[in-house]
Amino acid sequence: MSRDFLGFSRSDAPCRHHTHTGPAMLVTITDFGSQGPYLAQMKAAAMAHAPDLPILDLFTDAPAFNPRAAAYLVSAYAADLPEGAVILGVVDPGVGSERAGIVVHAGGRWFVGPDNGLFALAARHAGGAAAWRIAWTAPDASATFHGRDIFAPVAARLARGERPLGMPLDPATLVGADWPDDLAEIVYVDAYGNCMTGVRANTLPPGARVRIAGHAPARGRTFSDVPEGTPLWYTNANGLVEIAVNAGRADTALGIGVGTPVEIASTP
Amino acid sequence: MSRDFLGFSRSDAPCRHHTHTGPAMLVTITDFGSQGPYLAQMKAAAMAHAPDLPILDLFTDAPAFNPRAAAYLVSAYAADLPEGAVILGVVDPGVGSERAGIVVHAGGRWFVGPDNGLFALAARHAGGAAAWRIAWTAPDASATFHGRDIFAPVAARLARGERPLGMPLDPATLVGADWPDDLAEIVYVDAYGNCMTGVRANTLPPGARVRIAGHAPARGRTFSDVPEGTPLWYTNANGLVEIAVNAGRADTALGIGVGTPVEIASTP
Amino acid sequence: MSRDFLGFSRSDAPCRHHTHTGPAMLVTITDFGSQGPYLAQMKAAAMAHAPDLPILDLFTDAPAFNPRAAAYLVSAYAADLPEGAVILGVVDPGVGSERAGIVVHAGGRWFVGPDNGLFALAARHAGGAAAWRIAWTAPDASATFHGRDIFAPVAARLARGERPLGMPLDPATLVGADWPDDLAEIVYVDAYGNCMTGVRANTLPPGARVRIAGHAPARGRTFSDVPEGTPLWYTNANGLVEIAVNAGRADTALGIGVGTPVEIASTP
Repeated sequence: MSRDFLGFSRSDAPCRHHTHTGPAMLVTITDFGSQGPYLAQMKAAAMAHAPDLPILDLFTDAPAFNPRAAAYLVSAYAADLPEGAVILGVVDPGVGSERAGIVVHAGGRWFVGPDNGLFALAARHAGGAAAWRIAWTAPDASATFHGRDIFAPVAARLARGERPLGMPLDPATLVGADWPDDLAEIVYVDAYGNCMTGVRANTLPPGARVRIAGHAPARGRTFSDVPEGTPLWYTNANGLVEIAVNAGRADTALGIGVGTPVEIASTP
Repeated sequence: MSRDFLGFSRSDAPCRHHTHTGPAMLVTITDFGSQGPYLAQMKAAAMAHAPDLPILDLFTDAPAFNPRAAAYLVSAYAADLPEGAVILGVVDPGVGSERAGIVVHAGGRWFVGPDNGLFALAARHAGGAAAWRIAWTAPDASATFHGRDIFAPVAARLARGERPLGMPLDPATLVGADWPDDLAEIVYVDAYGNCMTGVRANTLPPGARVRIAGHAPARGRTFSDVPEGTPLWYTNANGLVEIAVNAGRADTALGIGVGTPVEIASTP
Repeated sequence: MSRDFLGFSRSDAPCRHHTHTGPAMLVTITDFGSQGPYLAQMKAAAMAHAPDLPILDLFTDAPAFNPRAAAYLVSAYAADLPEGAVILGVVDPGVGSERAGIVVHAGGRWFVGPDNGLFALAARHAGGAAAWRIAWTAPDASATFHGRDIFAPVAARLARGERPLGMPLDPATLVGADWPDDLAEIVYVDAYGNCMTGVRANTLPPGARVRIAGHAPARGRTFSDVPEGTPLWYTNANGLVEIAVNAGRADTALGIGVGTPVEIASTP
């Protein structure tokens, strides 16, 4: 069967820890949209501290002004980033108010951003989290753009290996500590109209049924498990319960969007 | 005329082969859209194997679910990428079905993605192509996201210099081997409403005429060769026949879009 | 107060000049939109000359076909880029005509693009600018894509440390030399509907009042300084007078957009 084999001459293992001596990966999660200057300004501020910083923009369309919904995305999508990655999260309707900035360390990754719950679930689901309040501020920080002026420099310095000093905060005192472990609502609609919930599929009992907006989609493994135009739910590639329509858009077909409640029931 | 001269102190030649020892460039071509997590997740999976991998996103808006139209774009737009570049192409409506994953080497560049025709024209137009089937799969690969779980790691390993082992496939057995050399349809509409065809302009006889949707646009070299509001066709910057309207949008003005047939005739 | 302190083990200073020996940062400002191949093609052309070039896309939605409005953005947003950065600006409705290409050096940064005024304000506001005309052209340059074929290679070579030879142009002879120091119009609408003017706030007298489209927004420091649904103006994070509506969109609420005139008056 050598005809069908794509072999490689070296090990399958990712090479990060063996050959890479530069800064860790910076990953942005924002509601800034895919256009306009803000994301690049934030990245330029980070690169001033770490010029060879690898940067990925994971979400530019996190739920706008909605750190609670975004928190469930952050937890699910940080989980497949490499250890050491620094997540710079800015969904920050309270910028300019008195909300604090924080650093969280959880699951081997760093999180930097506002203390508004955005990292609450990532900290809880990973276990063993530590947190610090950011007291540092740039001498000329603006009132409205802490992502650029405060969070990006802190994130870059973590990425290049510096570590926070001082006594950690108790994560139980952070905003979001009282939010549920899973959120039975739509938290994100992707470009295809597929609707993610804040529910981790591996928390459901076998045979669990999903209901949303009067529909009871069947469970599938891939879209083609149901006829075209039919809704289904499945475990998405990051472990969340997701609702879609085969060859269609679930958001418009079912009339659902961020905030729509989902009902999950065990089989009777 | 030294006043008008912008000279440089060194050679005009690109410096790649002399000074760069890192991995080759990874170039993504997808229909994922410019928002949402999927593109960054795929890139993170590649960077786990090649942390300093230079990555460019060439298309995030390739014709959605349409590998046939996309194949003509891939061929035209891969041609000006540097030799050694690895094109990671994911326009993959069949993910989760039995379609295979392949690696193609053509024109000095690598192509990684589904065997659904996406690379068929790049292989044919470059000549001398070789192909391999990807039998490797990640132990925990998802059912719905082969771009992240299979294609990205393979692409990254090619970019860092590993080479496929085993016997190549015959490219004539790949999906798309029976597609035409040029596709007389609109295959892409850009942000300005300009409409690209799948026809290489250098295959046309001198004096060829173009007709589309009842219009017979004149040939121009640049937009300003026709009055404002008037359609024209020209050889675009990647060699394809493209239809536009000076100071307007061809897609809405002419009522055309991906899939609209184009008629090309020699002068009578 | 060690509990609230996020200290670091090293200096606060950005590390660029001490540890980074690669090329300077390339920053793109275009009206190409966030999708489609053109931006990546331009970056690939730059990377052919500087494979490890760090690149940021500052604006992909600069005012389309409007180098005059864009010029005020370029000046305000280049100012917080690191010294040595190379700004590759392509808002170029005249491509294919006889307009020249230029290099400008101002405020320690480089600007590369068309001589259509795009860099006129950056040159003037920074002071001490020098400029060169680009006479070089690629042997196979296209008629319609100078960003890829001419400007990107020039920008990359500046980023890797090459310097223009020959006699500088007099910046007073460039297009835009007669434009006002500040433009009392909306020059950009961001993703949230906030509307930037081309007026630097620090040029206004104390107590200045702003009027636009029949509205007289109060001055604020942050959005929450006015009730929800109420317009305000403030100095944005890059020093421009910006008009917004707390918890709303100024563009639709006030019926304003790029080109809407702004009236600024001293207190009577």
